[in-house]
Amino acid sequence: MCGLFGEKGYLMDSVFTMMLQGKIPYRPLYEDADVFAILDKYPLSYGHLLVIPKKQVARFDELDPHTAGALGKAVALMAGALVQIGVKDYNVLQNNGASAHQAIFHVHVHIIPKNEHGLELVWRPVAIETAGLEEKLLASLRK
Amino acid sequence: MCGLFGEKGYLMDSVFTMMLQGKIPYRPLYEDADVFAILDKYPLSYGHLLVIPKKQVARFDELDPHTAGALGKAVALMAGALVQIGVKDYNVLQNNGASAHQAIFHVHVHIIPKNEHGLELVWRPVAIETAGLEEKLLASLRK
Repeated sequence: MCGLFGEKGYLMDSVFTMMLQGKIPYRPLYEDADVFAILDKYPLSYGHLLVIPKKQVARFDELDPHTAGALGKAVALMAGALVQIGVKDYNVLQNNGASAHQAIFHVHVHIIPKNEHGLELVWRPVAIETAGLEEKLLASLRK
Repeated sequence: MCGLFGEKGYLMDSVFTMMLQGKIPYRPLYEDADVFAILDKYPLSYGHLLVIPKKQVARFDELDPHTAGALGKAVALMAGALVQIGVKDYNVLQNNGASAHQAIFHVHVHIIPKNEHGLELVWRPVAIETAGLEEKLLASLRK
């Protein structure tokens, strides 16, 4: 791989990293040492915002524990801010991988108010064999 | 309100609280002082699991910062466990309120692997007026 793309196949600097570098203007709603929050530029509903780690990491599983914790705290804080301005129901969503609807390969947690607009979910439980799955997960956690 | 329902209109003890009380059997995949993780009983895909605060809180905005942080860390850990057993793409989803698809009024974060099964999202950005929204959110954060 070379040029604009890093070894994982995404742009070296994400749009969020370029904001932090001062290359793209943005208005932080919240900011601390680890994370920041902005409005989503293409909202699904009024109040749709993003909470983003400053460190450019593509997927949630790649976050270090400290940053993952900071992200959890900031999501609760920003959800509280939305509730204070009148939001009732909302979805918290974070996508990992193109097939899971990730478009920017720098972790970003969506908080999406639900009213006549918002996130539409199709919930289709499947009958699948899960024998041995718990053992596999427990074993992977012991590694 | 009286009887089975608490003042917020949901069952006094959620199914997750009853698990922790020993009233409903469950198998924790992960557990610490603040959170635990289990397989989702009605999975959308193989590996669909839940990360849950032990404290029964209905909505993410009602979590205290410590618990919200513990939840973020545990989601990263469990997503890592899924990746170790071969999951590639996945969605992290947490629903707040019935209109946003919340069915159990005790915060639970879904981690949903995406393959031929998984979460289906309809992404429909809307053109909405957001003038003054950032100011309102910033003001609510100053409170």
